[in-house]
Amino acid sequence: MDKRMARKAAELLKKVREKKPLVHSITNYVTMNYTANALLACGASAVMAYASEEVEEMVSLADALVLNLGTLTLARVEAMSKAGKKADKRGIPIILDPVGVGATSLRTGAAKRLLEELPIRVVRGNPSEILCLARQGTNPKGVESVHPVEEAAKAALNLAREHIATIAVSGKIDLATDGKELCRVYNGHQMMGYMTGAGCTATAVIAAFLAVSSSPFEATAAALSYFGLAGEKAAKMSDGPGTFRIRLIDALFRMEEEELRLGARIEITRAMG
Amino acid sequence: MDKRMARKAAELLKKVREKKPLVHSITNYVTMNYTANALLACGASAVMAYASEEVEEMVSLADALVLNLGTLTLARVEAMSKAGKKADKRGIPIILDPVGVGATSLRTGAAKRLLEELPIRVVRGNPSEILCLARQGTNPKGVESVHPVEEAAKAALNLAREHIATIAVSGKIDLATDGKELCRVYNGHQMMGYMTGAGCTATAVIAAFLAVSSSPFEATAAALSYFGLAGEKAAKMSDGPGTFRIRLIDALFRMEEEELRLGARIEITRAMG
Amino acid sequence: MDKRMARKAAELLKKVREKKPLVHSITNYVTMNYTANALLACGASAVMAYASEEVEEMVSLADALVLNLGTLTLARVEAMSKAGKKADKRGIPIILDPVGVGATSLRTGAAKRLLEELPIRVVRGNPSEILCLARQGTNPKGVESVHPVEEAAKAALNLAREHIATIAVSGKIDLATDGKELCRVYNGHQMMGYMTGAGCTATAVIAAFLAVSSSPFEATAAALSYFGLAGEKAAKMSDGPGTFRIRLIDALFRMEEEELRLGARIEITRAMG
Repeated sequence: MDKRMARKAAELLKKVREKKPLVHSITNYVTMNYTANALLACGASAVMAYASEEVEEMVSLADALVLNLGTLTLARVEAMSKAGKKADKRGIPIILDPVGVGATSLRTGAAKRLLEELPIRVVRGNPSEILCLARQGTNPKGVESVHPVEEAAKAALNLAREHIATIAVSGKIDLATDGKELCRVYNGHQMMGYMTGAGCTATAVIAAFLAVSSSPFEATAAALSYFGLAGEKAAKMSDGPGTFRIRLIDALFRMEEEELRLGARIEITRAMG
Repeated sequence: MDKRMARKAAELLKKVREKKPLVHSITNYVTMNYTANALLACGASAVMAYASEEVEEMVSLADALVLNLGTLTLARVEAMSKAGKKADKRGIPIILDPVGVGATSLRTGAAKRLLEELPIRVVRGNPSEILCLARQGTNPKGVESVHPVEEAAKAALNLAREHIATIAVSGKIDLATDGKELCRVYNGHQMMGYMTGAGCTATAVIAAFLAVSSSPFEATAAALSYFGLAGEKAAKMSDGPGTFRIRLIDALFRMEEEELRLGARIEITRAMG
Repeated sequence: MDKRMARKAAELLKKVREKKPLVHSITNYVTMNYTANALLACGASAVMAYASEEVEEMVSLADALVLNLGTLTLARVEAMSKAGKKADKRGIPIILDPVGVGATSLRTGAAKRLLEELPIRVVRGNPSEILCLARQGTNPKGVESVHPVEEAAKAALNLAREHIATIAVSGKIDLATDGKELCRVYNGHQMMGYMTGAGCTATAVIAAFLAVSSSPFEATAAALSYFGLAGEKAAKMSDGPGTFRIRLIDALFRMEEEELRLGARIEITRAMG
């Protein structure tokens, strides 16, 4: 395990709590309450405006922008594009969560358009979504993955190089790459697969870390280990996915920086291929 | 109590967990997070897309379709109609939850239109909603019922025969009929009345069971007893409706099939009148 | 502390539970599930319709109307205006929650328009929002406050007199004024700052109390002390903001009227300036 990265994770968590970055999310209606609560539990601030009439003004106050394709509409894609351009002008990081890409042409088209138009720093998806983005698979199960993480490693690498971005793939072991380095995050718990929005929340947490870091790759690895470790802690106090979801918010809130430094299990390797 | 139906309930729960049917819900924004979590806790998969631009593609991946009239808009009725027609072509079951029907003409009109256009297999509502659908009452309390279940029994029977569908009425004792048989499900807990979305969630759980059963009537009775029994278990670990909602998700997740077989309290009678 | 107001708070809680007023909320998508659950836990009923096509009919069934500017759109402002006019005709109380006012011109414009058009009885916001409404500040943090409560006291007073309304400001100590009297509510817990929707929920609870009281000022003070006291109780059973949110619903549900009478810490003074 990489001790430097574990230390970095703890440092970034401390920074999030000190700076309380405002994360503006244009996101789906299913999980927006949970991701807002998760951001507050991390120590960040959250705002979820999505109307075309106000996204530019709102993103002008923000420290990071989340674009999440769940429960998408055409109007929301326009608002995302508008907000993203403003975020670009202001130099704040943008993260894309391509929920359900490959399942419908609306989502696939939106993901492609946003990736082309905007300097997206991080994309976080499940293996099927990342494979779809790299035109190497389909998404037969809507917003769930049917592929194991390692199958998406090559696709992630290609995407990272094509878009000069960090690509993160969530799964039993999380994976992230910026095209040069590749990390595997061993923190996490299977219970995350039985709640809705675990992926969306990982994305939101990464956004908070991105807002206080100059390295999208490090911010992603750090956030994923923090989120995964909180999941491990939550699982110990849970009787099922209901209590797990609640305890996960508590665990994000209570995580001490030293605890994260000791518990983060991040492995860094050179990206091959 | 009907032992065959209790056995059936356990069998169908097992099937849901094995087949993990994808339930596509076009539903309200108030309870969509909770119903998604409930579906995952049951062992099913969930997707909640509602944009007219993508509902047909999304329903093409699904094993059942939920149409829920909460927080309705005209645009959403169009999307429901479109998705429903596609579901019909694919032969996957459709279930309607007429939330607040009778309270506004938008909802009443939508329910009538969808019932005319689509081969809806199950309608689940509260007594006031079912009475409204059968043109035998009004809905003076918005989305809550002001009538006891038994008052809606005759209306349910008429609707079942008129639409060749299973009609389920939720209440202290749940009731369902396909026009030939009538079942009463004695599982459940009054705490369900103090949380939002208990009805919507019952509908979602029925959808998951519908997806793995050839009999809408049996699937409905089975799902209602499973959901009600989970409520009974959750109530034992709750201090109020907050903890109850959370424990209900745990209980859906943890319910053993054998436990359901022993705990399901379903009574079947010939439908009279 | 004011014993008469504490007694009044207990009385109004009793009335809410007896009359079960229907609160119609046109509100944001982030917190609508939570506020609906909170209303049910209080003993009130909740309906969240927002489509222009049905808001007038829905508000015709309601006993109070909440207009909440979170996740606002232009279309929703129109629906709010329509619903508000109907509420006015029917003589039911309207409460405005100006979420994020000052952050975008959409929200600022909407708040001004609704305050001009409608006989709003109560406005509840955080200090930054109330300062913005009174044209005495900006809102640099989106939907969060950057000002302490006491800084907004003068602005609240001016607004109360200008709009002949009760203005409530949430914070460590809550404050409310009708332009003549001013109350400070000492109930509450800092954990409320780590969950999303604490403010929205306070607004919803005030709406339920407004529906059963002839004095908006008393209803507001009573509801804030009830909500704050529930927060204190919830905090004792919580390990973080996740469990806190859940326990808060339980505490609203379980609060005995006598407990509120003894625990309400409301101070009333003449409004100065």
